[in-house]
Amino acid sequence: MTRYRLDIAYDGTGFSGWSRQPSLRTVQGTLEDAVFAVFGRRGRGIQLTVAGRTDAGVHATGQVAHLDLEPERVARLERAQTRPGRQALPAAQALLRRVNGVLGLYPDVLITAVTEAPAGFDARFSAVWRRYRYRLADAVSGRDPLTRHTTAWHPHPLDEALMDAAARSLVGLHDFAAYCRPREGATTIRTLLDYRWRRDDDGVLIADVKADAFCHSMVRALVGACVAVGEGKLAPDDLPRLRDALERTSAFTVMPARGLTLVQVGYPEDDLLAARAELTRARRTLASGDDE
Amino acid sequence: MTRYRLDIAYDGTGFSGWSRQPSLRTVQGTLEDAVFAVFGRRGRGIQLTVAGRTDAGVHATGQVAHLDLEPERVARLERAQTRPGRQALPAAQALLRRVNGVLGLYPDVLITAVTEAPAGFDARFSAVWRRYRYRLADAVSGRDPLTRHTTAWHPHPLDEALMDAAARSLVGLHDFAAYCRPREGATTIRTLLDYRWRRDDDGVLIADVKADAFCHSMVRALVGACVAVGEGKLAPDDLPRLRDALERTSAFTVMPARGLTLVQVGYPEDDLLAARAELTRARRTLASGDDE
Repeated sequence: MTRYRLDIAYDGTGFSGWSRQPSLRTVQGTLEDAVFAVFGRRGRGIQLTVAGRTDAGVHATGQVAHLDLEPERVARLERAQTRPGRQALPAAQALLRRVNGVLGLYPDVLITAVTEAPAGFDARFSAVWRRYRYRLADAVSGRDPLTRHTTAWHPHPLDEALMDAAARSLVGLHDFAAYCRPREGATTIRTLLDYRWRRDDDGVLIADVKADAFCHSMVRALVGACVAVGEGKLAPDDLPRLRDALERTSAFTVMPARGLTLVQVGYPEDDLLAARAELTRARRTLASGDDE
Repeated sequence: MTRYRLDIAYDGTGFSGWSRQPSLRTVQGTLEDAVFAVFGRRGRGIQLTVAGRTDAGVHATGQVAHLDLEPERVARLERAQTRPGRQALPAAQALLRRVNGVLGLYPDVLITAVTEAPAGFDARFSAVWRRYRYRLADAVSGRDPLTRHTTAWHPHPLDEALMDAAARSLVGLHDFAAYCRPREGATTIRTLLDYRWRRDDDGVLIADVKADAFCHSMVRALVGACVAVGEGKLAPDDLPRLRDALERTSAFTVMPARGLTLVQVGYPEDDLLAARAELTRARRTLASGDDE
């Protein structure tokens, strides 16, 4: 089998999240169906493994997945591209073109790159960190109808300096149970590697959040907590205190999915990919991946 | 009567253009209905006059319109905002808040500012120029699903230096009949004040186009002509030649509306507003405004 890494971008607005679900339009379902269409009936059974299982409405510019192809399918891809007078494409390029061809002219999900994966690569288990961005317009920036698909709205002015201070105070290895939707048998211990707030050139509030992995609705809870700080309902000091209470709280709300985008997934150097995947699998019940 | 200037932004995707049409969702219809909702039944008859009558699917971040309110309605606006313990808002601010309140939480059309208009102001006839932007992704930039609502797509690489040279060669006072959808009794003579192409930080091709006014589908024809240059089908020199032939041509296509945004409308200093409006009205059959 040959493993291919797929880099993927999507507008989450029209999807019920990443994971395939019966009778719902999902990113995984749409992409796997496009792969099936390329290989015909024998393509059934090809599955995508993903780095970040994004929730309904969440976007991605830097999602990563992998799939495995038997030698016969790789050969078919290479043959199919060989037309009189045209140079054959490598299988990875052929896969990119043909899957995107099925997806359409300007679709809401798109494969941005296909590469033959290095030995030991696993899109989910080799990943060492995920980075998300949250866009939030407030009374300072105003609303822009042209970016409303990717931007949440808060009708009052927010203090970005307080939000940034609060965000930075949460960084580190902690139990984030207070910021997670609980899931049976899964740990909520995570390493929050980076969390900061700023305003961009249009005055829109931008959060950058990076962690080894996230539990369910964690980024949107972390954003909601900082919004409560930005409007003066909580002090920056309250956020680590609430975190260490390990209990979910009504002191802040989970923010809407529309503002959230998975922007990047980090992997180690090629020679460490397999070791990392082994390590993550061993801790599987501890840190069961990424469910934002 | 008091005249108010409204600054307006919209995502054109869900609208059949600016101008009110029976049984179609239009920007003018949506905004006028929101104004009616604020004033109740007696609000019927309040009409918006607009600077740029954008076509179906065209966006705006800097659209300008005006409406006139009788003293009684102005007084009602000011009264309605007076609540115990709250300061009364000026009528312009009350109008902004209440119309946007009707439009919803994060609507596809939004009033960004309301100001009492200076004497002699007419959103349409006082305007001295309109500026549009066109966003075009090509094989160099790639497609981004998150910005596809505001970006057209060309599947091959385009040469932006040639496109920019071609664009600049069209600037000046000319008859743009070759770049306009014709309209009975209306002139196609326009002053193209500025037209240039560049790539932004994401590699997306951006056209800036400014003219005293545009005739119907003129910006999208000007863009299509430069795309033909960018892919090598036409030379930059061909564009002024085609323009001066004064005949519509199949040498280039009119590009899709999704990439087009009205970004700014220019007005003269306050003391020249009335004179400018008078001048434009006098030439009305010559340059009947802006129909992009």
